[in-house]
Amino acid sequence: MVTGDDRRPALNLASRPGQRSETVRRANLSAILRELHLRGPLSRSELVALTGLTRSGIRAVLSDLVTLDLAREERAASQGAPGRPSPVVRPNSAGATVLALEIAVDSLAVGVIGLGGEVANSVRVDRPRGRFSLEETVDDLVELTRVVRARAKSRGPMIGAAVAVAGIVRRSDGVVRRAPNLGWRDVPLGARLTVALKTGLPVAVANDGDLGALAELRRGAAVGSNHVLFIAGEVGVGGGLIVDGRPFTGLAGYAGEVGHIPVNPAGSVCRCGSVGCWETEVGESALLTRAGRLPDGGRAEVDAVLRDAAAGSPAAMNALNNVGRWLGVGLAGLVNVLNPELVVLGGQFGRIYPHVSTTLRAELDRMALEASREFVRVVPATLGVDAPLLGAAELAFEPLLADPAARAPSRAASTTAASA
Amino acid sequence: MVTGDDRRPALNLASRPGQRSETVRRANLSAILRELHLRGPLSRSELVALTGLTRSGIRAVLSDLVTLDLAREERAASQGAPGRPSPVVRPNSAGATVLALEIAVDSLAVGVIGLGGEVANSVRVDRPRGRFSLEETVDDLVELTRVVRARAKSRGPMIGAAVAVAGIVRRSDGVVRRAPNLGWRDVPLGARLTVALKTGLPVAVANDGDLGALAELRRGAAVGSNHVLFIAGEVGVGGGLIVDGRPFTGLAGYAGEVGHIPVNPAGSVCRCGSVGCWETEVGESALLTRAGRLPDGGRAEVDAVLRDAAAGSPAAMNALNNVGRWLGVGLAGLVNVLNPELVVLGGQFGRIYPHVSTTLRAELDRMALEASREFVRVVPATLGVDAPLLGAAELAFEPLLADPAARAPSRAASTTAASA
Repeated sequence: MVTGDDRRPALNLASRPGQRSETVRRANLSAILRELHLRGPLSRSELVALTGLTRSGIRAVLSDLVTLDLAREERAASQGAPGRPSPVVRPNSAGATVLALEIAVDSLAVGVIGLGGEVANSVRVDRPRGRFSLEETVDDLVELTRVVRARAKSRGPMIGAAVAVAGIVRRSDGVVRRAPNLGWRDVPLGARLTVALKTGLPVAVANDGDLGALAELRRGAAVGSNHVLFIAGEVGVGGGLIVDGRPFTGLAGYAGEVGHIPVNPAGSVCRCGSVGCWETEVGESALLTRAGRLPDGGRAEVDAVLRDAAAGSPAAMNALNNVGRWLGVGLAGLVNVLNPELVVLGGQFGRIYPHVSTTLRAELDRMALEASREFVRVVPATLGVDAPLLGAAELAFEPLLADPAARAPSRAASTTAASA
Repeated sequence: MVTGDDRRPALNLASRPGQRSETVRRANLSAILRELHLRGPLSRSELVALTGLTRSGIRAVLSDLVTLDLAREERAASQGAPGRPSPVVRPNSAGATVLALEIAVDSLAVGVIGLGGEVANSVRVDRPRGRFSLEETVDDLVELTRVVRARAKSRGPMIGAAVAVAGIVRRSDGVVRRAPNLGWRDVPLGARLTVALKTGLPVAVANDGDLGALAELRRGAAVGSNHVLFIAGEVGVGGGLIVDGRPFTGLAGYAGEVGHIPVNPAGSVCRCGSVGCWETEVGESALLTRAGRLPDGGRAEVDAVLRDAAAGSPAAMNALNNVGRWLGVGLAGLVNVLNPELVVLGGQFGRIYPHVSTTLRAELDRMALEASREFVRVVPATLGVDAPLLGAAELAFEPLLADPAARAPSRAASTTAASA
């Protein structure tokens, strides 16, 4: 099992006397649906190998998943091998869809995503940087959702919704505690979206760095890794941690705020109010200022710096070197504390990666402990700008994946009801 | 259930077809033995409340634990309440003991510790700072073990052994990758101790900060907390992390090296080879140097600084303030990344805590993100110098706690054998 946080839930059997067989049935439904959602079509033989269930056990689980409209079985085309081909099982993309939303500093995005991760439809619209009220933002998301849902109309039931936001989020109630780049403080985003979207579904809220990490773990650069540090640079610098194969969010959901480790007591004042945070050395505005461009110029200006550097501009190369060096300094500390196997650089850091990787590695070599440095790989993210949106979809699918049988009266429940 | 990392192991039933009832029996043995080991004597009623098992379920488990010599039942003295008093169950301290060892920079320690955490006997001997070879250290530990075991002779079977060491440890094979204060590099400590101690038991090896965190979680300041950052200052500065109630060791066991986060690019060269590590600002020698004392003076000199400060010495007070301030800076970054509920200050930091807590808190207020700062408590450790030794005992008990039935042919196994 290498699918990251897709471990089966712990069954605390001691505290659930008398419910053993229903508990086992649900755990097996969950395990198989996760495999299909994350890996795509699989043969029954592959499911046997992946789960350790017997063939008859797999058959019973698949029958349930088909009844729940979450999977489809197809006779596989024979590939010339002797014997009957093993039927192929697919996640039923239209059997369950989720609504994923993202509030970035520069843009808003909405997607309808089906079981298995297929993006049925999505849209991203840029908006100028600045302070938008919660109401404006919610209104825009409602309108984008209307458009996207209309385009994805043929899709099946919507079973969850989640939003990624560039701010510090209290997971328990979906309140954005602080989003300096949006000008938000203690904003009840989850509650407002739940009402405004009128889907009848509660909208889960999470930090964009945390969800970027989740997406890269499930479908990107970190598939198969258990100890991952994801770092995303945009206007601010955020991140997400994967610990022992699971997203790590800390006590309240605030973990992963790597942009605000103090690295330079002689540095600049940070938007968070502190001084010399990592973000002040590696964030977009540090890069642009040093390269002689508008500090708040956004992606277009960053691209211009990359072009200048490719053309040999000393100011642009110096600015990139400086970011690379400070990236290495901050990463050294994080690698020493977390001993990850993989560091994934997302957002702007993914785009500038080819220009900074040599400097970054040299600094990491110089400053990280040899033991922890030894096996850590530093790679660019593979999901690009949509990582937080795709992570929001994964978050929204989570309740279904954890307990597929809860979506409808289960066969066992009906039996119990009938015999009662 | 608030006993920290004492969660019951996940039962992956899907991959163990046909073994369900034996699996459940073992999980229940483990759950009950953990409760007894960590909480001490409990009534059957309390065990029912803690585990959710039925009374007859508890009775069967206790019968097995008594057969395995791991628990004793006693009729409780009636406390005047009506009805029969519920019998009290105790962990049998002599039924299973472990050997715990510690290699600190200034001392060696050995203890024999019984189930339930009772220290049957222990010894700590100071040794001068300096570089001791692996062989000298192992010889000393063997001699100390002989003494301690002789004194604890009446105790029962030894079932595990573990050593805490002031260095970076690869958990998989017990190799100390680097211990700058001992002068060690890639030293096969676990293998050598396993042979030299002649107990027939493999000796597990772990970092002293990680084991200090484990001990404080199980028996000290962090009981009941799920997200804990433990920081221990001695000659070097180490730490340990508790994440979601479990010790977090990273990919290879190197996580928690908080002493080596870069906090000051204009700072001193660190013994790790990097520059401006947190340890260079908050470690013992930084405190002593600034207070005008011998940088390598050890605990006696630190105590002298505390006395000077109490007497109003500006140099001593200034040195302590400086450490408090840098403690706050480094903690701010760690709190932002990890969002812990509790920071436990151990070792020297526990001793200087009363003198630095105000400065530390002010700096943390200034530099940590408000959301993460809000609920984090900073407290001194309660287990003192023995925390790593007690953590080694917990590590050594872990295999027994995880599967008590494995210690001897279990009843189920005998039945199977008889019927085969």
